[in-house]
Amino acid sequence: MMKKFSVPGFRFSASRAGIKQNHQSDLALIVADRPAKAAAVFTTNRLKAAPVLQGQKVIRGGRLQAVVVNSGNANAATGPRGLRDALATAKAAAQSLGISQNLVLVSSTGKIGVPLPIAKLTQTIPQAVAALSVSGMNDAAKAIMTTDAFPKIHAVKGKIGGRAFTVAGFAKGAGMIEPHMATMLAYILTDLDLPAAAMRKSFKSAVEHSFNSISVDGDTSTNDTALLLASGASGIPPLQPGTTAWKVFEKALNEVCQRLAWMMVQDGEGATKVVEIHVTGAKSAASAKKIAYAVARSSLVKTSFFGEDPNWGRVFAAVGYSGETFDPSSVDIFYGPVALVKNGLPRPVSQERKAHKIMKNKSFPVMIDLKQGRGQAQVWTSDLGYAYVKINAEYRT
Amino acid sequence: MMKKFSVPGFRFSASRAGIKQNHQSDLALIVADRPAKAAAVFTTNRLKAAPVLQGQKVIRGGRLQAVVVNSGNANAATGPRGLRDALATAKAAAQSLGISQNLVLVSSTGKIGVPLPIAKLTQTIPQAVAALSVSGMNDAAKAIMTTDAFPKIHAVKGKIGGRAFTVAGFAKGAGMIEPHMATMLAYILTDLDLPAAAMRKSFKSAVEHSFNSISVDGDTSTNDTALLLASGASGIPPLQPGTTAWKVFEKALNEVCQRLAWMMVQDGEGATKVVEIHVTGAKSAASAKKIAYAVARSSLVKTSFFGEDPNWGRVFAAVGYSGETFDPSSVDIFYGPVALVKNGLPRPVSQERKAHKIMKNKSFPVMIDLKQGRGQAQVWTSDLGYAYVKINAEYRT
Repeated sequence: MMKKFSVPGFRFSASRAGIKQNHQSDLALIVADRPAKAAAVFTTNRLKAAPVLQGQKVIRGGRLQAVVVNSGNANAATGPRGLRDALATAKAAAQSLGISQNLVLVSSTGKIGVPLPIAKLTQTIPQAVAALSVSGMNDAAKAIMTTDAFPKIHAVKGKIGGRAFTVAGFAKGAGMIEPHMATMLAYILTDLDLPAAAMRKSFKSAVEHSFNSISVDGDTSTNDTALLLASGASGIPPLQPGTTAWKVFEKALNEVCQRLAWMMVQDGEGATKVVEIHVTGAKSAASAKKIAYAVARSSLVKTSFFGEDPNWGRVFAAVGYSGETFDPSSVDIFYGPVALVKNGLPRPVSQERKAHKIMKNKSFPVMIDLKQGRGQAQVWTSDLGYAYVKINAEYRT
Repeated sequence: MMKKFSVPGFRFSASRAGIKQNHQSDLALIVADRPAKAAAVFTTNRLKAAPVLQGQKVIRGGRLQAVVVNSGNANAATGPRGLRDALATAKAAAQSLGISQNLVLVSSTGKIGVPLPIAKLTQTIPQAVAALSVSGMNDAAKAIMTTDAFPKIHAVKGKIGGRAFTVAGFAKGAGMIEPHMATMLAYILTDLDLPAAAMRKSFKSAVEHSFNSISVDGDTSTNDTALLLASGASGIPPLQPGTTAWKVFEKALNEVCQRLAWMMVQDGEGATKVVEIHVTGAKSAASAKKIAYAVARSSLVKTSFFGEDPNWGRVFAAVGYSGETFDPSSVDIFYGPVALVKNGLPRPVSQERKAHKIMKNKSFPVMIDLKQGRGQAQVWTSDLGYAYVKINAEYRT
């Protein structure tokens, strides 16, 4: 049985609104005892679902007290009605909780292009409020799942000035796995007291190096949302950026985000392996990331991971077409500790046999050193096998 | 039996140099009776194979008389030795033909990272020269194949001022199909007399709308080369750009390039369908192409084509993450003549059933109308099924 997680200052619940056809829980609630500092990162997809538009509006206030998440329906490509439904959801939660509607953020995940069954949702909200509990995070993590094979939760506990604090999060996704099932959602909660601007900056960086550093299929959903709430309930005085305490917080935040992102890749559609593409020696961090993504997104590279084939030629070619400039005759490529390319030239075939053994692991790194500068980036990707095709090619009706 | 193609002013041959392990023909020669006007487009991959570097140098003269193509070995990631081998190949052909080395372009396709067996190649060149024949194009098309399931040839014959002319081409690829097997190669030949600058411009445009408008797996190889040679042997006076005769030539050139590109998609690794992604109403042609490629490259879209699932949500989401700006509430999406999305909203489910029937065809169009401007683009893509995984995931040793 999974350990019960909790974060001082927050309560959670999971309910059945009847949106999912399998009658599993499909409504998660996160409520802070009082308005919490809030920072969010939303999808860059031009086609933004109604709840994302609602969320982008309320986050401007910098404070939130409640988050309502429904699964089973993404409320995306639903036009003006979709936006009305997102607002009605926030309103129902605000009324039940006796708080301002501007303190409620709404998320949705599930089918695209189907109107939200709004009556089911609003009718269930009062009982969702009644069910709130400090130990409800695990159930909430299950309620936001769509085709996820397992709930994704991670927590870090630490001490600052001798006093305990927590950074914990839960997430769903990634991969637009089943027909019209989209979306990566991540909710990170802490009982620290954080100044709004610095918190936003740290969260943006943490998201960049975690949820924005994974590639299951390269597709960005209409509903992607990552949210950080800080309750301040730890009693630790407000942290200041640049201090050692702030670094302790950032380390915990990064660990939670990276661990959740890793679990998303692990749970990617039919994935059997998680591979870390690590690019070093690039001209800049941005250049390194672009190169890492070109490799991580290549279907040819991903099928070679599935086949446990140390096909460095595909990796090298992907580096080449990334659009970034580099000197091919400086490139080294390693699979785990095994060098397959040194200074642009292949190593003996015996090295490939060693690399083949490394690739039998459930997880291994591929390191690409360009020797052009100090830029580096890590991107996690999955392999592409028969299960991916099976899951994604099925006709729905 | 396939019709024998020929183009006045050119001779061809196919030989066995023993580079391919299956002892099939692996050396193709194209020789013009006298230096021909030449235009070429090479891979944009930063990792350029040695023959591409050689080709980029000799094409500067604007005239070529011979093309040597070997299959079985790409002479890529082979360092300084690779470049020496490419030059040695050109030199051997020049000596056998009694022409300048600067009139010889070399292409290679096959395994990456293995030195070219240069002795085998140079020893075979004299007999390849001896075998040159006006009717040898079909055999040459076979000799450049690596994992291609069929040779790709197309010819257009027409008349200008009552006199016959020919534009014909042969190609191999696309798709980096087998281990380390890369490269799209295309050789287009005409007996028209064309001014060099205008010919380059027309060829660049034709390549843009054909070989650069296909996506099998999104990967760009280290060796991609498209070449146009004009012998002038038709006896038709030099064509001038802007004239009706020039339009007749361009139409023929575009047809040959597009037909060859289509065959490459059809022959893509394990492809069962060719789908035309047609974007209209974009803000510019470049914007339309970027959107079309985002859709054409999405593994989720491609698996839905394989499954004959009219999953417009994946198409819409790909349009959204293309990075281009548009108004989601204006978007129409058609599969063949069947509208699945109108003004950003889904049509009734009965439409999906109709679209499912359209998708049973070996080839069908997906049309996306953004209603933002007059930009349009077409990109051809394949589906992604079990055969893709099977072909690409196998371990080589």
